[in-house]
Amino acid sequence: MADKKTIPYKIYLEESEMPTQWYNVRADMKNKPAPLLNPQTLKPMTAEELSQVFCEELVKQELDDTTPYFDIPEEILDFYKMYRPSPLVRAYCLEKELDTPAKIYYKFEGNNTSGSHKLNSAIAQAYYAKNQGLKGVTTETGAGQWGTALSMACAYLGLDCNVYMVKCSYEQKPFRREVMRTYGAKVTPSPSDTTKVGREILAKYPGTSGSLGCAISEAVEAATSKDGYRYVLGSVLTQVLLHQSIIGLETKAALDKYHITPDIIIGCAGGGSNLGGLISPFMGEKLRGEKDYRFIAVEPASCPSLTRGKFAYDYCDTGMVCPLAKMYTLGSGFIPSANHAGGLRYHGMSSVLSQLYDDGLMEAIAVEQTSVFEAATKFARIEGILPAPESSHAIKAAIDQALLCKETGEEKTIVFGLTGTGYFDMVAYGKYNDGAMSDYIPTDEDLAKGFAGLPHVE
Amino acid sequence: MADKKTIPYKIYLEESEMPTQWYNVRADMKNKPAPLLNPQTLKPMTAEELSQVFCEELVKQELDDTTPYFDIPEEILDFYKMYRPSPLVRAYCLEKELDTPAKIYYKFEGNNTSGSHKLNSAIAQAYYAKNQGLKGVTTETGAGQWGTALSMACAYLGLDCNVYMVKCSYEQKPFRREVMRTYGAKVTPSPSDTTKVGREILAKYPGTSGSLGCAISEAVEAATSKDGYRYVLGSVLTQVLLHQSIIGLETKAALDKYHITPDIIIGCAGGGSNLGGLISPFMGEKLRGEKDYRFIAVEPASCPSLTRGKFAYDYCDTGMVCPLAKMYTLGSGFIPSANHAGGLRYHGMSSVLSQLYDDGLMEAIAVEQTSVFEAATKFARIEGILPAPESSHAIKAAIDQALLCKETGEEKTIVFGLTGTGYFDMVAYGKYNDGAMSDYIPTDEDLAKGFAGLPHVE
Repeated sequence: MADKKTIPYKIYLEESEMPTQWYNVRADMKNKPAPLLNPQTLKPMTAEELSQVFCEELVKQELDDTTPYFDIPEEILDFYKMYRPSPLVRAYCLEKELDTPAKIYYKFEGNNTSGSHKLNSAIAQAYYAKNQGLKGVTTETGAGQWGTALSMACAYLGLDCNVYMVKCSYEQKPFRREVMRTYGAKVTPSPSDTTKVGREILAKYPGTSGSLGCAISEAVEAATSKDGYRYVLGSVLTQVLLHQSIIGLETKAALDKYHITPDIIIGCAGGGSNLGGLISPFMGEKLRGEKDYRFIAVEPASCPSLTRGKFAYDYCDTGMVCPLAKMYTLGSGFIPSANHAGGLRYHGMSSVLSQLYDDGLMEAIAVEQTSVFEAATKFARIEGILPAPESSHAIKAAIDQALLCKETGEEKTIVFGLTGTGYFDMVAYGKYNDGAMSDYIPTDEDLAKGFAGLPHVE
Repeated sequence: MADKKTIPYKIYLEESEMPTQWYNVRADMKNKPAPLLNPQTLKPMTAEELSQVFCEELVKQELDDTTPYFDIPEEILDFYKMYRPSPLVRAYCLEKELDTPAKIYYKFEGNNTSGSHKLNSAIAQAYYAKNQGLKGVTTETGAGQWGTALSMACAYLGLDCNVYMVKCSYEQKPFRREVMRTYGAKVTPSPSDTTKVGREILAKYPGTSGSLGCAISEAVEAATSKDGYRYVLGSVLTQVLLHQSIIGLETKAALDKYHITPDIIIGCAGGGSNLGGLISPFMGEKLRGEKDYRFIAVEPASCPSLTRGKFAYDYCDTGMVCPLAKMYTLGSGFIPSANHAGGLRYHGMSSVLSQLYDDGLMEAIAVEQTSVFEAATKFARIEGILPAPESSHAIKAAIDQALLCKETGEEKTIVFGLTGTGYFDMVAYGKYNDGAMSDYIPTDEDLAKGFAGLPHVE
């Protein structure tokens, strides 16, 4: 461990070294991601159409695929300074335990109350809503990380925050709900009788425990049926990847400071917010032909949108009220099994990452959840941090790559994104500790059912 | 906020600036804390007697009141580097919200999986146990922060870890229990049938939900009745204050780096581990006549050992098996009400802090829990961090001091210890959010009952 003398366990940037712009990777992509389509007309969504649902400034960011850098407003930079920069950690102890010549780094986004990277985009979206003079925002949340992050951002800015929380999570994760309430958010179990779509679903399926798709539909309706509100979303959208580029930009600045060049960059992939943010600036270098890196997206075997999905236009939500996006998808009707990494249970994938993957610029693998929890537990005991199940997908892949290096003797530098902590996931850890966790891999027949529901778009 | 240009939101020490020695404040005290007494003979405990319960190196630290500095072993420094230095945060947003001329800083110890400062001593105690060739350690835990910290330290070092968890906490805080299990600890609800004392209590009080005093007795019995085990404790003992001095030393180094001199230093006080650690190096300067500071201990009004207790020899545990300590105490038979700051529900106080308080070197105040949660919620919304109920006692006092500065126009510099996060305390926050939290202040008659049980020691 000769590095220990020169490279600290944790690299923290100085405030003066923190990025002041977000990076828009689409600007450097030859094949741009396909535009969002209006679900009725199947024509590209106009700024005007999008502005009925989203804040104006965010619509501009969503549609702009040529501007490489966006200035981060001063107020957002101030908020970032309360919990950023996040540390880039050298996993000395894990390297020693694995007895690998590989050098492992992870960018840890869990040191804030939301427990994940979601806060990076939540504050940006809340800021633009406030700036537009809105009263508040609405959103949905599944596991609760995004809802918590948005609640924090809204509390800070004095914005009203309405969260539709999937009913089964609302009931099974009362502590997450309570964190949001502590930050002043109004949390409604979905489906609810507060919206038309909610009432319809309740009438049709009495006793349903809800779904993310239904919660999205309720949140969109709630935003568009009241003056002074807009809908915000924590992943999938390209604006979210733009805000999350802060992760990659900080990572790159920290590596550059110590003259470290990574060989492999790994992230877990659900909707793509973390992975997209982490790899963006590195991908930019690759796209511009300046450097080459391997990028590995890690998804759950139970919801394998990149590795087994189709690259096609699809609905972003199960309710089919949102625009269509061209992406790797399992079909909006695909119902993932009850994998404990709730944040990765999404049928589709960011259109940016989908395009990059389709262009062969990024790899993807799928891993099973018991192996993920095995890696998570090992990591927790060695590196101290108790990782979120989602983040642990990246840990699993990083460990496997480091063990490959052990076989080949290669001193590769591996960087992975540790998106958050697992403090609110102890039910899942308990199942693993009790040996009661199982794996589920959808059959080809299961997938065929999801694909059958794909819309027909030329 | 002219300071913003020169003083960052978060001051992180470089690895090379991290303390490499602990500071033993007793070395600079004129009136040394009184020695521990053998509960049978009422004579000072010898090293030999203590070594039957505690590790040898820790016994040396416990008894040494003259050596000012102890080198921190390399292995412990390595572990510290995984989660330390902790940030010293400038509460710019809170200052703005309060519209105060005061400058507020807090030392945040919550950015590790145990969620508190407890890890600082857990790794030290586990290290010395390992170094002595022991197989494992036993301890008790109430709310679970100490048990979690010890589990983490033992997992890292490959030591066996047996935690006796107060049964009501074991049942009401299953997630805390699960974190410990994830780190490989064996967690037993107390009272249990695994010890003689546990079986006796179960026979006498069938269906009891346990107490910290009982759990201590079980943990001590478990340690002393098996070869290769010792008992460890997370607070009260002077060795713990020694290890926790890392908090104060880092705080002082960070302040010195920016030429900041605090006027007031505030910490919550249960057994004294955090407060003692935070103030130690500053108190040293005061004791040596080099500088003057105000120190304020903040305790819950429901368990007011400093503000309403007696300075007397008392049992450290309700089971009366542990040595006697001279301290401010409400009597080992005093049963605090169900205040949600479980970590502060201790009848006594570190003998070091008790002596300093008795000598007029430190002040103490008691605050009620609804006002504490009000401060906690305000702090969470403004500064982002969701604080532990224990830590929030210090927040409450710091806000009050800052508001006093607003009245007087004084630009005082206030430093407080933010010991941890409240992620596992959402039941308490829920009660507060629902307006269902009440305050309880013991009457003089309640206190008299506790005092009646004090042992008679000349």
